[in-house]
Order: sequence, then structure tokens, then C-alpha cells
Amino acid sequence: MEQNDISSRIVFADRGKVNVEKGVEFAPKFDQNGLIPALAMDHITHEPLMLAYMNAESLRMTMELGEAVYYSRSRQEIWHKGATSGHVQKVKQILVDCDQDALIVLVDQCGAGACHTGHHSCFYRSVPFGDELKAQPQGGGVTLREADGGVVFDAEAVYGKGH
Amino acid sequence: MEQNDISSRIVFADRGKVNVEKGVEFAPKFDQNGLIPALAMDHITHEPLMLAYMNAESLRMTMELGEAVYYSRSRQEIWHKGATSGHVQKVKQILVDCDQDALIVLVDQCGAGACHTGHHSCFYRSVPFGDELKAQPQGGGVTLREADGGVVFDAEAVYGKGH
Repeated sequence: MEQNDISSRIVFADRGKVNVEKGVEFAPKFDQNGLIPALAMDHITHEPLMLAYMNAESLRMTMELGEAVYYSRSRQEIWHKGATSGHVQKVKQILVDCDQDALIVLVDQCGAGACHTGHHSCFYRSVPFGDELKAQPQGGGVTLREADGGVVFDAEAVYGKGH
Repeated sequence: MEQNDISSRIVFADRGKVNVEKGVEFAPKFDQNGLIPALAMDHITHEPLMLAYMNAESLRMTMELGEAVYYSRSRQEIWHKGATSGHVQKVKQILVDCDQDALIVLVDQCGAGACHTGHHSCFYRSVPFGDELKAQPQGGGVTLREADGGVVFDAEAVYGKGH
């Protein structure tokens, strides 16, 4: 896909000229790095899978392709999720919030999982709070707890060594 | 709560000294503005409610209080959600992702809703993609679609005029 083509086909509204909260014009806000956060969730179970970022181009690609395309901050490049692993995310719905600076992408997660660690979801650990936190030794760090059933696929086989 | 007290009670691990992905030490990563994104979801329905940000202090307050405390980027201050509206979010679970730079907060949303616009969720509009996008006139902007049943409370009565 040529960026110029896609930019002219999918035009975002000027945030200064529309009612961002009450209007129907899509005017996404990108942060100082040109990115908007996008949380991918399973479209049926609503399990949160991963939080990643899109730039304007990857958002347009997601909208046109119907598969989640992010911008990799570490690799500084467009990242078509699943291009390496086969774990494509087929988009079922995209939601935008009141001030249009965050997205939810409801997806059909293909393959065994979303996370490069081998877990189904990136959110595989829980953070203690309240009583559970109080029961931990204070001042020595906070201990996370496993929140899923463990890894569901061999990350090294899917992504290669040192992924 | 005194910040110094809470910082010594809840100590985050040094990210350079632990295995962030495979370890059990909580070592949240704050971005260049000192913030980490936190998506609040209903703990039963898993409906996404809002995406906001926490700084180290508000994250510690959330963990200690068991109610969601964010950092307001617009007001540049600690924001105990519900302090004005009564729409407190009682924390049921906090999840952290593989690289520990994003949080999910599963909450019991008190009151009618999470959004200052009067909607139950901030994610009340959907973004067209694929065939629905193609059916819209090209080059003239993207039209959002309502994704919920409309407002559920009188935002002006709860937050005051010009909220």
C-alpha cells in the first residue's frame, strides 16, 4: 500500500474544526511521538490481549485491511501483527473514546496467542493491591502473581531464538 | 496520604536489575512524561470503560486504596476518579503486561458511568473499517457510528456546567 494513496483515501478530520466528543467526524489525536494507544481485546470473550500503538499510517492500514497494524516503538517501523508469527488479528470492531486519543480494537486473534512470550495475552500477571498488598513484606518490592494458566505456545519456535 | 510514606511502603523494582517479562517483581515502566497507560474495564462484563494514565504516585495510591487513582494530563494533578462525580471505580484486579508498560484495571464502576460526557463508557463510538469504510464517500473524512445506547446520565448535573 502506498502511503500517499491511503492518506488521500482515508482522511482524518482537523481536531480544531469538529466537535471531537459529540461529533461523528473521526479526528484521532496522536501524541508528541505521532502515536495513539490501541488496546486489542478478544471480540467474543473481551479478554484484553495487548496494548500497542498506531501511527496515522498504521491506523489507516488497519482500517483498510481489517487486520491490526501497529507501529513498533522499539523497531521504529510499521508492524503488521502476525506477519512473522501467523498470529494475525482480524478486526471485528474499532472503538474510539470521547476525546479520540485512545482506541479499542476488538479482534479475532488467530493462532495460539497475542504475546511474544508464549502467553495467550500479554496481561498474564496481576499486581497486588489492598489486602493482598498489605500481606506482602513492606519496603522490599511488590511481587506479581500469575493471572493465567501459563504459556500456550512455544515462543521460540514461532518467533525464533532471542525474539 | 503522604507521598514519602507511600513511596517507602510500595517500592517498584529497578527495571535494569530484574527479568521484566518472566520475573515476578513489579517494575512498571513510566514514559518520558512519567506516565503509564491504564485501561479500566468492568470486572464482570469486561466492557472497556476508559483509558487514562497513572504516574508513580497515583499507581501507588490505587494499589493502597483499592480505588482507581489516575494522573490528569490536562489538569496536571492526581485524579481520584469519582471524587467529584461519585463515580468511584472500586478495583477488583490490576493486570500488567509483558514489558510492564501498560495496565488493565478491572473495576466495579460505581454510579451511572465512567465518562464525563454522560455515556457509561468513554468508548461510545465505532470507527468504520473494511467494507463499512469502503461504503463511505472517499476523501471526505471518516464518519463514526454510535456504539452504545446513548447517554445514561446528565453530565451537567453530575460535573457542573462547562465540565
